[in-house]
Order: sequence, then structure tokens, then C-alpha cells
Amino acid sequence: MQIKSLVTLTALLCSFALTAQTEDSVAVKKITDEVMTNATAYENLRYICKKIGPRLSGSANAQKAVDATARMLKAAGADTVYLQPCMVPHWVRGAKETGYIKLAGGKKYNLNLCALGNSVGTGKKGINAGVVEVRSMNELDALGTNNLKGKIVFLNFPMNQTYIEVFRAYGESGVSRWDGPTKAAKYGAVAAMVRSLAINPDDHPHTGVTGYNDSFPEIPAVAISTNDAEWLSRQLKLKMQLSAFIQTNCRMLPDVPSFNVVGEIKGSAFPNEIITVGGHLDSWDLAEGAQDDGAGVVQSIEVLRALKASGLHPKRTVRAVLFMNEENGGRGGEKYLELAKTNKENHLFALETDAGGFTPRGFSFEVSDAQYEKILPWKPLFYNSGVYKFSREGSGADVGYLKELGTALCGLIPDTQRYFDVHHAETDVFENVSRRELHLGAANMVALIYLVDKYGL
Amino acid sequence: MQIKSLVTLTALLCSFALTAQTEDSVAVKKITDEVMTNATAYENLRYICKKIGPRLSGSANAQKAVDATARMLKAAGADTVYLQPCMVPHWVRGAKETGYIKLAGGKKYNLNLCALGNSVGTGKKGINAGVVEVRSMNELDALGTNNLKGKIVFLNFPMNQTYIEVFRAYGESGVSRWDGPTKAAKYGAVAAMVRSLAINPDDHPHTGVTGYNDSFPEIPAVAISTNDAEWLSRQLKLKMQLSAFIQTNCRMLPDVPSFNVVGEIKGSAFPNEIITVGGHLDSWDLAEGAQDDGAGVVQSIEVLRALKASGLHPKRTVRAVLFMNEENGGRGGEKYLELAKTNKENHLFALETDAGGFTPRGFSFEVSDAQYEKILPWKPLFYNSGVYKFSREGSGADVGYLKELGTALCGLIPDTQRYFDVHHAETDVFENVSRRELHLGAANMVALIYLVDKYGL
Repeated sequence: MQIKSLVTLTALLCSFALTAQTEDSVAVKKITDEVMTNATAYENLRYICKKIGPRLSGSANAQKAVDATARMLKAAGADTVYLQPCMVPHWVRGAKETGYIKLAGGKKYNLNLCALGNSVGTGKKGINAGVVEVRSMNELDALGTNNLKGKIVFLNFPMNQTYIEVFRAYGESGVSRWDGPTKAAKYGAVAAMVRSLAINPDDHPHTGVTGYNDSFPEIPAVAISTNDAEWLSRQLKLKMQLSAFIQTNCRMLPDVPSFNVVGEIKGSAFPNEIITVGGHLDSWDLAEGAQDDGAGVVQSIEVLRALKASGLHPKRTVRAVLFMNEENGGRGGEKYLELAKTNKENHLFALETDAGGFTPRGFSFEVSDAQYEKILPWKPLFYNSGVYKFSREGSGADVGYLKELGTALCGLIPDTQRYFDVHHAETDVFENVSRRELHLGAANMVALIYLVDKYGL
Repeated sequence: MQIKSLVTLTALLCSFALTAQTEDSVAVKKITDEVMTNATAYENLRYICKKIGPRLSGSANAQKAVDATARMLKAAGADTVYLQPCMVPHWVRGAKETGYIKLAGGKKYNLNLCALGNSVGTGKKGINAGVVEVRSMNELDALGTNNLKGKIVFLNFPMNQTYIEVFRAYGESGVSRWDGPTKAAKYGAVAAMVRSLAINPDDHPHTGVTGYNDSFPEIPAVAISTNDAEWLSRQLKLKMQLSAFIQTNCRMLPDVPSFNVVGEIKGSAFPNEIITVGGHLDSWDLAEGAQDDGAGVVQSIEVLRALKASGLHPKRTVRAVLFMNEENGGRGGEKYLELAKTNKENHLFALETDAGGFTPRGFSFEVSDAQYEKILPWKPLFYNSGVYKFSREGSGADVGYLKELGTALCGLIPDTQRYFDVHHAETDVFENVSRRELHLGAANMVALIYLVDKYGL
């Protein structure tokens, strides 16, 4: 930042500080106290995790989550609660996958693996083939058909430990899961084995969606644990030639009907201006989807409850949206946009919470320069909660669809250090969510929405 | 803050930014990368927690921890490793405590309880008495001897949910544990039952030291879980008269010899100027002391390792000190000061890490105004790690002794939301420490010590 703009910013902050800030900090304190004392988010999350559990799109549990969260929105004080029907993919894992590396003397090293979401299965016979390790997409291209045809490609892209923002490492290494299998198929590979996207060593396979490309065959794709990936990489260096067996039972069934769940508090002055806050209701099938994204669901519900309980009736319509199918299709987000267009809705602002219910550290804005100048002076109001970061990066996958409408978008940025210990793995359970962290995140979301509602954008 | 000082600060930050910052940010990045990639702190912590475990002062495990961490300091690259003998209290819990509330019809409600540290025991017969709840020290004084004589006083001081810095709530409610039992004794109470100092509801008793006053009898004191405290408070409101039975087997034995463990890297230019970094080696007996303060111990050792591994040989002597007996006596800290005086050591700076190995959020300085002005411009160097807070509050119990020498003191401030879920309870185990959070804390400690060493104070 140039000195000049820093001085301008300083002046801006000060002029704001000397006028509206006192009134607003009283309101923000009131909101924060209300949430930290009386939030129902944690108990709602317990219900979603322990009474329902995994809720992949198209599953019976996903429907249970629709019903339960509609009730929660009513209990939170929404004026109106309704469902937005949408068709969703229906991928099923089938019986537990197996796989191993063949060792000398007929011995086996069993792999901690799971099929990647949306992957095709291997069939009952499974797949037997030599393993080739690649550590980058360039290496994959360089090896090409000559080296990869008929092979199981082992995409070993460790997450970069030196990135303090762990999502950056996810973005970089994640290409192995999103694009790796289909690129391997391009060169004739028969299956793909992807190193789990976990930044710490562990024994759990972390699933997640993979994408196919119509031009290439759909090959089975699995994730193996980071510890297994390290072991396998060492073995390949020692022995050069190893073969693996994998057997998976997953398949994609025809689309089925499902729903976004919406709860609203109608605005008192500008009911047609809509402020959306949301997380996604579906989760992967391996765990309870506690951090991803049960946390976001219950935080979004908490926004309505806390606004009501604080007596801060919004001027604009505040809408909590629990999106279906973020994990393996994005159909809920797509449907939300479609209905917004059909109904000619005016979407002022949309806040997504889908990075876990950890201690909040900031907000990321996708807004115009003029909007950002309006928002930035609010930042000191969040310092008491330890929220110091207002950045201009991406917002979220579900609210991202609204970009087409010119809506100002935002994402809650929680602390990222622990997210990839549980992300898409069996460790994503209620016990790994901190009540205080979850509620503090919700408190800051309510405060931001209070400010957007009060000042507009 | 006044506008004028903000502008001055801005100028200060900018002038610093334009000169030394580039060189320093390169060094800080190097340090951070080294720690996030190669730190041994997490594996050292695993050893301390899983191979040793609880290590209350005077126990055989405390001695094992002395031996093990001396080895770790050598392995980390300390030039010199030595022990500082000191006598420590030797309190033992004895057989597991029991206690219950008597209900109608001879039924019992069993309490999750434990003796408080340094408490006397009840003897085998236990104590049977009516329970009186107090919710503040004023209430205790108001009830006085008339109402408290012969009773078990139930000190129910919930931690304030609205404090975002949870240590503030600990400070406020903690008086119930530190002073409550002896104040109850002043009014003739026969025992004290203290609500655990946990901010979230749970079923674990959280121990911790209580203090006696020579003027009053030493009465047995226990902690009960927060859930039991809530239950008991409700029952007392309904039934008014309830009595309890508690039986504890703890006692204080004569002092025994123990040690601080010290590892040094001798300074290349000013070897007589000492920079101390430390945590405490002892832990409560109920768990592994992972966050309290195994984390601080292994972070302090990591400071030496990372300085060596980064090739940043310090000009001043950097000394990692693993203090004994922080929990129930402070004898290690006291001894460290005594030896510093005896040996006429020049203590420039001392950094304590005893608030858990959670994501680092800042540092708290006990320094002069001139020193703070020198330190403050370093703050932007920590933003990349998400560290935004440089405050002027307390540092730590062990380094606090050095205040007498005029040493500049500092405490690492980690995120506080989860600390009191595990603090002094059986949940303080290795599994509840995040590798990335622990290492990120260590990285920031190394960076701060690098700057203090480079620029002096």
C-alpha cells in the first residue's frame, strides 16, 4: 500500500470512528453478547450430526436434514420458511471399497482408501495394474500415453506446509483430485489414486468430488490417506515397480428431487432488497459433515435467531438459505440463481459460510471498489472479536452463482489450520467443533449483516 | 486513539516498512517456512504426552520429563544443556475422590469431582454436610458465619460467556478457586465445592491450585463439573435444603528436589545478554498436560532448533527454560530469578508460552514505553501469520519473576476459545493439540526472538 492511500484510509477510519462507530459498536456488542450467551447453533449442530449424520445429496438423510432445518428456521423466528425444489445428482458409494499394494511373497499392504465422489466404480472384479507416481500435472503430461497406458496413476500432490492460509494449499494441490483422474484417462490410465487433500499426516482417506471430461473415458478414482501416500512414494522409489489392486462399488444413479431450505425475516422498509446468508445442507457420506458444512448451516440459522432476539428488526429482507448439493453438483446454488432471475429478485448482498465453524478471522469480499470503500470503515467494529482481515478474494461456491446478478458477495474466513484434518473425512464429526468458535463465527456474521442492512451497499 | 497519534504511528510504520522490513520479512518467512515444514515440536509433544503423561511436581513422571526434555534440547542443537535444582511441593491426590448429593428416598446423585491442587483431604470418613450456594465473594461475605458454619460451601461462579478473551473470564471467576475455599473456612465452612473453571458445559472436573490462608483452617476443596454445578444450582433453587458427601484422599508431603531444564545457544556478539523463552514442564495429574503446558515446552525447544536450522546464529544468548512447578508453587520461576541474581546475569528479554498451543493471535508485552515504540513497528512482519495483536498486558507466571530485574517480558497470545475445554482436566491430551496450530505458534515465537536479538531492546 502506498503511504498516500494509507493516510487517506487513516482519515477515513477516523472520521467513521468519530461518528457512527459508537452507536454501531453498541449494537455489535449487543449482537455478540446475545450469540455468545444464547445461541442455539451448537445444539442444532448436535442434532444434525448425531440425529441425522451424513447427508449426501439424494440420500434419505439429506431429506431428513431438509425437514429438520426447516423446523429449526421456524424455531429461530423466520417469518416464512419454504423449500426450493431442485433436481440433484444421486451418487452412491455402495459397499466399502478395498485396495492394496502387492508386496513380495504374495503379501499385501492394505490401503486406507475411498472412492472419490461422482467416480465410477471398478466393478466386482476390481482393477489390477502397475502404479505410476506423478507429482505435478506437468509430470503427468510429460509421462504421457507411453508410460501411463494401462496403469493406475498415483497423483501425489502434497499440500504445501508453508502456506499459512491452508485453502491456498488446497487450491494448488486440489487439481490432483478435480482434474487428475480425467487427465490420467486421457493418457490411457485405467484408474487414478489420489493423495488425500489433508495437510497433516493421517490415516484417513479424504473424499471429495472428481470431474470427468466428455472427451476421455471415465475411470475409477480413489483417495488414499496421506500416510499411505508417503509410504507408497517411498516404496516406489525403492522398488520402482509396484502394482495395486483396487475395488470400488460406487455409481451414479439418475437425478432425484431435493430442496434448498429458505427462511426469511421480511424487511421493514425495503422488503424487496434481499440479503442472503447461507451454508450447504448436504455433506459427504463418510462422516457427520460437522465442519463441512453443518457449521455453516447452523450459523446461518443463528443469524435469524440472533437478529430477532436482539430486537434488531432488519429494514431489508434477510434470508437464510441452506443450499443443497454444494459437494457434488452445485445444483442448489444454481437453482437459487435461477429462481432469483425468474422472480426478478433484487439481491443486495450474499454471505456464505462454508470454511468451517472455527474461530472467525475475517471476511472476504467480492464487491465493487465503491462498495469496498463503504465496507472497510466497519472493520474496527470487529476487532473486539479478533476479526482483523477484510480481504477481496473469493466468497463461496453457492453464493458465487449470484455474481451474474451483480450481487455483492462475501465469505466468512475462519481460522484454517484444522480444517483439512477433518475435511471430507470420517473425522468431520460434532466432537471436532468448538462451541465457542462456532458461535463467535455466527456472532460476526450477524454483525456484518446488521451493518449491511443498516447502511445498504 | 487520537488522530494525531494514529498519523504518527502510520508514518512510523511506513518508514519502517520502507527500510528494514524487506530484509526482516525475508528472515521471518525463512523462519516460518522452516518451522512449518520441519518442526519437531509436535513429535516431541507426542513423546511427553504419550510416553510420560501427567507430570505433577515431585512425581516420578516429572523427573522423566526433566530427563527427556534435556535430551530434546540437545537434539535441538543447544550448545549447553543443564539443570537448575530447586525444591518443589509434593502434593499427591491419592485414591480417586468420590462425592454425591443426597436425594429423597436415600438416592444419590454422583458428582464428577476432583480435589483441588494443594488441598487437604477429608480423611477416610469423608465429610457430610448441608450445601450452601454462593455466586460471588460479596454473597459469601454477606452470608457469613451464621449461614456458613458447618456447611459445604458451593462456589458457583460461571465464566462470563460474553468475554471473547476467555482468560478474562478465568481471571474473574477464578477467584472462586484461588480464594473461595479459604474465605469459606473463615466463616466456619467444613469444605468447599467449586464450579469448574470451564466456559463450556462439560462433565469433567477441572482441577487447579487453591490457596490457604494461615489465619483460617485448611478445609478440603474440590471442583465439580460445570454440568453438575448447573444441576446442583437448579436443585438448590427447587429444594432449598440439600446435603452432600465428599471424600478425598489428597495430601501435601514434604518438599522434594526437582529441576528447571535449560538449553542455550551462546550469543556470538553479546553472550552476556540473555533472551529467555520458556514454558512449564510440570502439569496437573489428571491428564497429559498437552496444551498446559506441554505445548509451551516443545515450542520453547523448537525456538532453538529453528534458529539453528535456519542458520540464524543469534548475537545474544538464547536460552530455552523449561520451568518446574508453575502449577502449584512457582518454585522453578522463583529459582530462575534467584540464580539470575546470584550469577549477576543480564536478562534482556523473556518470552513465556503458557496459554496453549493454539493458533497464535498476538503477543502481550510488559515493557517500557521506549521499548514498546521499538517493538511496535515489527508488527506488520507477523501479519502473514495472522498475528495482529501487540498488547501491553501480562506476560506469564514464570518469566514474571524477572520483572524484579527490569527484564522486558512477553507472553504469546494464542486463540483462547478452546483452552478452557481442556484446562486442568482429563481432556488435556495430545489428540486435542493441532500440529499446525502448535507449529505456527512456535514459528511466531522464533520470529519475535530473532527480531529482539537483531535489534536489541
